[in-house]
Amino acid sequence: MIVAEVIRDKRDGLTLSEPVIRELMQRYTVGELPDYQMAALLMAIYWRGLDADELGVWTDAMLHSGDVFVFPNRANTVDKHSTGGVGDKISIPLAPLVAACGVSVPMISGRGLGHTGGTLDKLESIPGFRTDLSPDAFVKAVNDIGVSMIGQTESIVPADRKLYALRDVTATVDSIPLIAASIMSKKLAEGIGGLVLDVKVGSGAFMKTLPQAQKLARTLVDIGTKANVKTVALLTSMFQPIGWSVGNALEVRESIEVLQGRGPADTVDLVENLGAQMLVLGGAAVDEDDGKSKIRQAIKSGAGLEKFAKMVAVHGGDAKVAQNPDLLPHVSDTFDVVAPRDGFVTSVDSAQVGYAGLVLGGGRLRKEDQIDPAVGLRIHTRLGVKVSKGQSLVTIYHRDGKGLQDAVNRVLQAYEISDVAPEFAPLIVDKVF
Amino acid sequence: MIVAEVIRDKRDGLTLSEPVIRELMQRYTVGELPDYQMAALLMAIYWRGLDADELGVWTDAMLHSGDVFVFPNRANTVDKHSTGGVGDKISIPLAPLVAACGVSVPMISGRGLGHTGGTLDKLESIPGFRTDLSPDAFVKAVNDIGVSMIGQTESIVPADRKLYALRDVTATVDSIPLIAASIMSKKLAEGIGGLVLDVKVGSGAFMKTLPQAQKLARTLVDIGTKANVKTVALLTSMFQPIGWSVGNALEVRESIEVLQGRGPADTVDLVENLGAQMLVLGGAAVDEDDGKSKIRQAIKSGAGLEKFAKMVAVHGGDAKVAQNPDLLPHVSDTFDVVAPRDGFVTSVDSAQVGYAGLVLGGGRLRKEDQIDPAVGLRIHTRLGVKVSKGQSLVTIYHRDGKGLQDAVNRVLQAYEISDVAPEFAPLIVDKVF
Repeated sequence: MIVAEVIRDKRDGLTLSEPVIRELMQRYTVGELPDYQMAALLMAIYWRGLDADELGVWTDAMLHSGDVFVFPNRANTVDKHSTGGVGDKISIPLAPLVAACGVSVPMISGRGLGHTGGTLDKLESIPGFRTDLSPDAFVKAVNDIGVSMIGQTESIVPADRKLYALRDVTATVDSIPLIAASIMSKKLAEGIGGLVLDVKVGSGAFMKTLPQAQKLARTLVDIGTKANVKTVALLTSMFQPIGWSVGNALEVRESIEVLQGRGPADTVDLVENLGAQMLVLGGAAVDEDDGKSKIRQAIKSGAGLEKFAKMVAVHGGDAKVAQNPDLLPHVSDTFDVVAPRDGFVTSVDSAQVGYAGLVLGGGRLRKEDQIDPAVGLRIHTRLGVKVSKGQSLVTIYHRDGKGLQDAVNRVLQAYEISDVAPEFAPLIVDKVF
Repeated sequence: MIVAEVIRDKRDGLTLSEPVIRELMQRYTVGELPDYQMAALLMAIYWRGLDADELGVWTDAMLHSGDVFVFPNRANTVDKHSTGGVGDKISIPLAPLVAACGVSVPMISGRGLGHTGGTLDKLESIPGFRTDLSPDAFVKAVNDIGVSMIGQTESIVPADRKLYALRDVTATVDSIPLIAASIMSKKLAEGIGGLVLDVKVGSGAFMKTLPQAQKLARTLVDIGTKANVKTVALLTSMFQPIGWSVGNALEVRESIEVLQGRGPADTVDLVENLGAQMLVLGGAAVDEDDGKSKIRQAIKSGAGLEKFAKMVAVHGGDAKVAQNPDLLPHVSDTFDVVAPRDGFVTSVDSAQVGYAGLVLGGGRLRKEDQIDPAVGLRIHTRLGVKVSKGQSLVTIYHRDGKGLQDAVNRVLQAYEISDVAPEFAPLIVDKVF
């Protein structure tokens, strides 16, 4: 194989064969194929795309660059992945609830970078919680209690780690096939039999428009189906942050409230809908309605909260947080951003709200940045709500004023208040399967 | 400057600003900008192109990555560049003839790679001839005798050396703006006031069609004009090898025959036409006819041959070859490839003829290959000529049979003989200025 000829073929819009893709990925993973050739190929893929067959092979080749997990009951083993939203803590209540209903959830999650947070960072706000379990401990936890949530390791899809770092510096991140392969290779490495995707669409999401989101969802679902994994995508609205919290410990607190049966409506709605899909795929519910009902029951009975506490304990964390969220790190300094006028909340720029959390110290602009788990925002108002001048829109939890002024300005910019109530968009926009 | 954002802009079809291009090139030349980012940018440029302003700056930034020559009389200093053809030895008789007419020619040439030869390799078949004169010796030769022909050095357009090596392995060679910038940066570094381009078009050339060749010619001429260098391009036919010889020493022999007034018609025609353009640009002729007449006179008087001998001497070569071409390296083993049938020569695949010379040992498949200066082909028949079965089409000069069988097969494949005479294409197809 002459790599320059492979790059030329993709550049000219031709299809790459399975042996070529597998050899490329193998040579790239071990460092035989230099970054500069992969960079040119990635840009050619950005331009020309990958067809369904190429993408299936590309993803499978990435997946097999490292370890793949095997669980005894693959058909009952299901995961969820979200393309990322502001305030998206859904995985934290969802995974224990689904496990409580008899479907195993071996979840490999990511860290936050930029304006969206990461599940790992949120979990690590629980005192003692470790997301770096060994592969064996991860498998044991899933087999024992039905749920575990860890970070990607050196041995899981190493090709993705290399490719992602390269894409980041060569303007080849936002290519649908490359995004899809990155997501799906990591999920398929979990050894799951089913996968529910939460594809966010809207101003606060990576996919701003419905057609874009549908295209990504279709691409992801097709990769999963080709790999013999039952895959469903829900397209869900991202026109405002999810729930009442943005910030690591605050989002864990909200997650516990969901498990305690007193979570905010939209968070609960997402948990029920995504959970129902997972239960159907995992064979623990006959249809969506049955699935939702089982999730509600697991909340009501406390079985989900109990599963959460067990998961926290297995990960070395303080399981008492499940009953007493005040054990989570917190700051006492608060600042209320108030409505500058009377009117209806007609628009919330989620990205600005996300950045507000970031500048307070709750996120990372660069990979090496340290996170303050306690800071964040408590959101009091939803889209369409009528507010009065001087009423609190958002309470900011800050540490000694760090980033406060910037955060306040971002929140004020984020909220648009007008005389006329906005039309409502549904939370679940579409389903692709 | 964030390089990933610059790559993104070009990927999205935006225009890069002058400071951005200059900083990119400066950082790339000194090694601060890694190859993988440049590779992604090159592929984006392959896709999106560079507009006239971007290309002017890109070329100028490349040019100023190294030394630029300065001659006392820039207006009288002119060069020629060919995009490369099989049997293209034109520079060797042309440069001394133009110098003999009072226009200085500071020529920086290349080596052969693949099926087309390189002027440097041809010149080095002259015993003792060195193409690696120091910059000072090059300037002195041009100032003293009006002509010198050297190779690119480490200090001349170093950005081009790095970029070319990268393009070669990333499938970004055949992009018109990148080709044009590579050619023009090296030519403009010569410190010339005028430039004549010989853009080859046809089956044996890099540009197969007239529109492609016209586009390249227009791009090259526009870069030159923007850089305040009078630039003219002739589009010339490449449907058969030029002249009677393919092979290094054989082509020098043919060049000497041109200077002696007994060269083959097409070689002489190209020399007269290109020479006339150079004399007009250099102010030594009032128009093309006057220029041609002056070139013919320089052949007839022997002034061109004398200038050639002086150039050979200045470069350390044996100047006696000018009078006695038998001093050039030669082989005594020959093989005649004969016409397999009666008919007209209706097509000659120049690339196959070029490869025949290559497999005999006369060229390089890889940069490190050694060249045998003596081997090659003597071509007896032109397009349209009527041949009889058994008549010699080509005499192959080989060394102990090396590559002979392959070369014979390629020549037989290259020649198409039919019953009907072909239509003639003119040698000079178009002029762009």
